[in-house]
Amino acid sequence: MRAVDIIIKKRDHQELNDTELKAFLQSYLSGEVTDYQMSAFLMAVFLNGLTDHELKTLTETMRDSGHQIRLEGVSRFLIDKHSTGGVGDKTSIALAPLLSTFGIGTAKMSGKGLGHTGGTLDKFDAIPGFKFPSSEEEMVKSIEHTGIGIMGQTDNIVPLDKKLYALRDVTGTVNSYPLIASSIMSKKLAVRSDGIILDVKVGDGAFMKNLEDAQQLANIMRGIGEMFGRKVHIVLSGMEHPLGNAIGNGLEVFEAVQSLHGQGPKDFEELITTITGIALLQKGDVTTLEEGIEKATEKLKSGEAVKALHDFVEDCGGDASYITDPNKFITAKFTYDLKAPQNGYVSSLKAEKVGTSAMMLGAGRETKEDIIDPAVGIMLHKKVGGKVQKGDTLATLHYNKENQKLKDAITLLESAYTFSDTAIETPNIILDIQ
Amino acid sequence: MRAVDIIIKKRDHQELNDTELKAFLQSYLSGEVTDYQMSAFLMAVFLNGLTDHELKTLTETMRDSGHQIRLEGVSRFLIDKHSTGGVGDKTSIALAPLLSTFGIGTAKMSGKGLGHTGGTLDKFDAIPGFKFPSSEEEMVKSIEHTGIGIMGQTDNIVPLDKKLYALRDVTGTVNSYPLIASSIMSKKLAVRSDGIILDVKVGDGAFMKNLEDAQQLANIMRGIGEMFGRKVHIVLSGMEHPLGNAIGNGLEVFEAVQSLHGQGPKDFEELITTITGIALLQKGDVTTLEEGIEKATEKLKSGEAVKALHDFVEDCGGDASYITDPNKFITAKFTYDLKAPQNGYVSSLKAEKVGTSAMMLGAGRETKEDIIDPAVGIMLHKKVGGKVQKGDTLATLHYNKENQKLKDAITLLESAYTFSDTAIETPNIILDIQ
Repeated sequence: MRAVDIIIKKRDHQELNDTELKAFLQSYLSGEVTDYQMSAFLMAVFLNGLTDHELKTLTETMRDSGHQIRLEGVSRFLIDKHSTGGVGDKTSIALAPLLSTFGIGTAKMSGKGLGHTGGTLDKFDAIPGFKFPSSEEEMVKSIEHTGIGIMGQTDNIVPLDKKLYALRDVTGTVNSYPLIASSIMSKKLAVRSDGIILDVKVGDGAFMKNLEDAQQLANIMRGIGEMFGRKVHIVLSGMEHPLGNAIGNGLEVFEAVQSLHGQGPKDFEELITTITGIALLQKGDVTTLEEGIEKATEKLKSGEAVKALHDFVEDCGGDASYITDPNKFITAKFTYDLKAPQNGYVSSLKAEKVGTSAMMLGAGRETKEDIIDPAVGIMLHKKVGGKVQKGDTLATLHYNKENQKLKDAITLLESAYTFSDTAIETPNIILDIQ
Repeated sequence: MRAVDIIIKKRDHQELNDTELKAFLQSYLSGEVTDYQMSAFLMAVFLNGLTDHELKTLTETMRDSGHQIRLEGVSRFLIDKHSTGGVGDKTSIALAPLLSTFGIGTAKMSGKGLGHTGGTLDKFDAIPGFKFPSSEEEMVKSIEHTGIGIMGQTDNIVPLDKKLYALRDVTGTVNSYPLIASSIMSKKLAVRSDGIILDVKVGDGAFMKNLEDAQQLANIMRGIGEMFGRKVHIVLSGMEHPLGNAIGNGLEVFEAVQSLHGQGPKDFEELITTITGIALLQKGDVTTLEEGIEKATEKLKSGEAVKALHDFVEDCGGDASYITDPNKFITAKFTYDLKAPQNGYVSSLKAEKVGTSAMMLGAGRETKEDIIDPAVGIMLHKKVGGKVQKGDTLATLHYNKENQKLKDAITLLESAYTFSDTAIETPNIILDIQ
């Protein structure tokens, strides 16, 4: 079948069979199908959708397009937790050690991302001497020893997804649920795991702006997982205001470690204990989610999880004293306290603006060439629902350079807050679990 | 505005303003916007449509993208007649001389097309010595002298349309009404004319398979014409079976010339007199279509139009005796009579199959490299509604080579006919006029 006939079938709402779709996709990866044919196809998919069968074939072809991480030699139950990304999301850093205390391993590929703050890789750069495992073999060792397996993304995993994503980015075909879902799931399926937990962020600071849309995306992803016989749970978590209080690379590791010491923010603790509860359910250690969350909460309070992170950092050549004494992460030269302009209650705190403000301080990358300053960022003292008196400190900016960008960051952060005279409820962090 | 934002706007059903769309299109022609961006855009247009305003901007930008044929020096009222193409369509060859007898000139760009039979250019190749005008200056002279102006398409007319069409052809975005309409109309608008008449073919042997779809396309084209202040009429003509009786290059010129001698097939005569009637209406010589058709019919019967074609052929260096004695066009070495297998009435005669059968004899091109044999083709003796006795000749194949292709052509032509025991009405040639 010619490429143009495949495009026409999709355009005309006819289902592509396995052989047709696979051949079309593989021919694209090998260069026989051109970018302009694929982009017309992607737009047709964007506007007409994909059937379940097509979705499975697409995901499978992406998964099989490159190397797969089999993690042979790992004896632990393996969880792959993935977040769709939001402001202040330091979940992986606290979750992996907590899971480790239950004998569960985590396997995660992480990248140096663009955005308000760096990826997990960038966050650990705040620890002097730290270097991530760079091979699958090292990762297996790390998982067996400490339970924690994080490594940089290698080029040869799901190359078809990478090629498609680059094209989608410049042709207006990014925001398609089936394309997003299959892209995420193909990466998950290319790495061995016994359970997959997806944390889909919902709200102003996330890609998914409302719960209904997020549920739709979650449904598609869980459906793909089921087609491949994988255990998949999806947590829909709030991103109307930032997660926890810290935004910035070192500050976020600080907050994650503080949580392991039992001193973390309530919303963040609730998120990691919920995810851990789900993992225990997937492993079969508990029979209800409530029981799992209870166990996770007890363990977090005990402070036992600090050790796993300490050992992981030590194994990776990092200064593990940062884990026992997280205050070492607070290293910016200057701080600025943003004060409340009135009495009342915080009625909104736009995550997007907080994130951009942190980026302006140097916490994130706008372009691939930007260099991240691990010390800078924002510590929030008041979030939505918080009661304030005029002059209270709402947030503290940690910065190293006194320049126009700092002034702009302060102005932007100021504009992220709105207030109400009447009491406002604190938003839920867990919106839904599927 | 970035190219991707233009694509996203169209994808999301937002109207593009004049500046945005024009810049996007011009950047495509200059190569800044890539093929893969344009193909995503075209698929979005295919599936979401264009607003009237966008349609106008697209057509205008295509028209203005290259050279325009101004035909300065032509004093005649100028008609541009265009057909969407069908089997046995030799309309232009008879129409231009007929119009000429009313002092009307025609200006037509024609190409060497792919298809069942050649384009108008190929058809005149059947006349020894004939060479088309090759410059605008020569065409102006020709129109002034004989009323007939036909020349080969030049590369620098509507280059944007050409570039877009080539991309649409390989990305499944050909069959979009607004894209077809703007493509056709941009070419019409790039050539000076006082009236435009579009002959949209409808039926098995045409691009438009049913009347409703054709009316929709016609509506869009007339709408574009109105936006540019042009007189546009659209004839929807039947292509359920072939037009006239002749299919093949020399045979079609033969039939057109026969018609000018007052000996043409009824359906063909009806079509050219109807179009001429419309032209007289556009020129203002008559006040009703009926009056125009009446005048055209009288003129056709008079044989007066033969002279214009004779002079045109002479001016172009061709052997004009072919026009006075059209039997000279019948030159194939062999003929084969296809016989009726039963008594009854012809209930269908699939134009598509008849056309393909003629192409197999050598009347058309499958690829650009194929050479057309002007002598070969098919003369139909029975069409839909015709009463037949078993053994009557249904059609005669004119051929030069006795080979497997001939056998296949006969089998295919045979399969184009179906019969009924009860009387069948002859289908109308004129289905609608807009």
